[in-house]
Amino acid sequence: MNAITDLGSRTGLRERLRIRAGAFTGQTSGLSPGNVQANLVILPKALADDFLRFAMANPKPCPVLAVSEPGDPRVPSLGPDLDIRTDLPRYRVWRHGELVEEPTDISHLWRDDLVSFPIGCSFSFEEALIEDGIEVRHIACGRNVPMYRTNIPCTPAGVFHGPMVVSMRPLKPADAIRAVQITSRFPSVHGAPVHIGLPEAIGIADIGKPDYGDPVPIGPGELPVFWACGVTPQAVIAQTKPELCITHAPGCMLITDLRNSNLAAL
Amino acid sequence: MNAITDLGSRTGLRERLRIRAGAFTGQTSGLSPGNVQANLVILPKALADDFLRFAMANPKPCPVLAVSEPGDPRVPSLGPDLDIRTDLPRYRVWRHGELVEEPTDISHLWRDDLVSFPIGCSFSFEEALIEDGIEVRHIACGRNVPMYRTNIPCTPAGVFHGPMVVSMRPLKPADAIRAVQITSRFPSVHGAPVHIGLPEAIGIADIGKPDYGDPVPIGPGELPVFWACGVTPQAVIAQTKPELCITHAPGCMLITDLRNSNLAAL
Repeated sequence: MNAITDLGSRTGLRERLRIRAGAFTGQTSGLSPGNVQANLVILPKALADDFLRFAMANPKPCPVLAVSEPGDPRVPSLGPDLDIRTDLPRYRVWRHGELVEEPTDISHLWRDDLVSFPIGCSFSFEEALIEDGIEVRHIACGRNVPMYRTNIPCTPAGVFHGPMVVSMRPLKPADAIRAVQITSRFPSVHGAPVHIGLPEAIGIADIGKPDYGDPVPIGPGELPVFWACGVTPQAVIAQTKPELCITHAPGCMLITDLRNSNLAAL
Repeated sequence: MNAITDLGSRTGLRERLRIRAGAFTGQTSGLSPGNVQANLVILPKALADDFLRFAMANPKPCPVLAVSEPGDPRVPSLGPDLDIRTDLPRYRVWRHGELVEEPTDISHLWRDDLVSFPIGCSFSFEEALIEDGIEVRHIACGRNVPMYRTNIPCTPAGVFHGPMVVSMRPLKPADAIRAVQITSRFPSVHGAPVHIGLPEAIGIADIGKPDYGDPVPIGPGELPVFWACGVTPQAVIAQTKPELCITHAPGCMLITDLRNSNLAAL
């Protein structure tokens, strides 16, 4: 059916169908170019209300793109067919803060009290940077983005509290200024940087040793530029050790029907 | 006439009338809050066409707000009554690149081939920074802004060429990011910074020794942030040594009827 295939190419449908069928279980970087990909956090309803208030209070690290109804595996605003139980290539299942399973489908774990939170991801703004001609170092190096725990506290809400995690991209100063302009247009995928130039001022002792991801080289004449990172909610949830939490596996994101350009505030 | 007085308070008229009458010959910083103040360059028609092309090619250091008709001392788009010969508190008269006079009125020098270029000034974006709660160091210190010749070449046009001059404001990194957002809204008054954090990368050997203006302290945890500066056209004109050039005296700007908020692109 060519009509569906073509629609599926423009939306995230084609990739979701492939992933849903179990035919793809890898990282989603580069799939469905132009489409919004999302981090995922799934929590029982008993914790979900606190988590939503936490995310609302910390929109730069936790930009919530949608919230499902409790027990409903659909998130229709991100894709009419979307099934959160099957449409990510790989998941991580956490029980009391311990990683217990990395399945490619969570249908067997589904409960009528689970609430899904797709959360904005830096893939969207990185695409805008690259389209503007700015090199994104970790992509150029074929690595994961370096991420660091900071001394910037998130605003606590209910049981959730902890420091902000940031991702870092080294840029020439003029590119850093341009990157502030570009990413300011995308508040729902972390928005403008939170820091530039002085890692020690936000509690980063050694820029060469990220807490998550891989180190990348910083050239002479470049500044490290820091964005609030979608790993923050996972780090915060790990501290609260909920009886059950399900997230995406690193790099294995939810591909949505939204276009990155749809997210531009200006 | 209260109606005129009130209008004059909201526009730049009241201050222009006072200056035109010779009752005020000082610096204009802080006068007519919210109104656009402008740098001024006046050149003979024989050079004015080259200068306009130079300014168009270098909009960040030379954001032209208006161009007068040759020989016409009015600039009606900036104020219906405005007379460029009398409405600045003090002028500088340059002959073959030499400063020869600092009059408070240039009526005696007026010629039917002179073209006026009011050029955007950082006062406008500094007001926006201060309204956002960001300290502008040289204002807090009661000094002139520090300015530096850089190794960034302007795009040449006709006889005009030379390096960009930049002004510097030290800011905490988060304020620097906010300042990029704020000043990006004002492209006609220098717009976003051109550099941040690494003075040596733009040819500034000693940040403590500005080429124009006064040094200001840079605190630990602050970055120097650099904007293209309206001194650039004056520095470039000084190199070409025209038979006649008239500019504003430092700090003695043209007060216009435009509101700073009128200049916001967004």
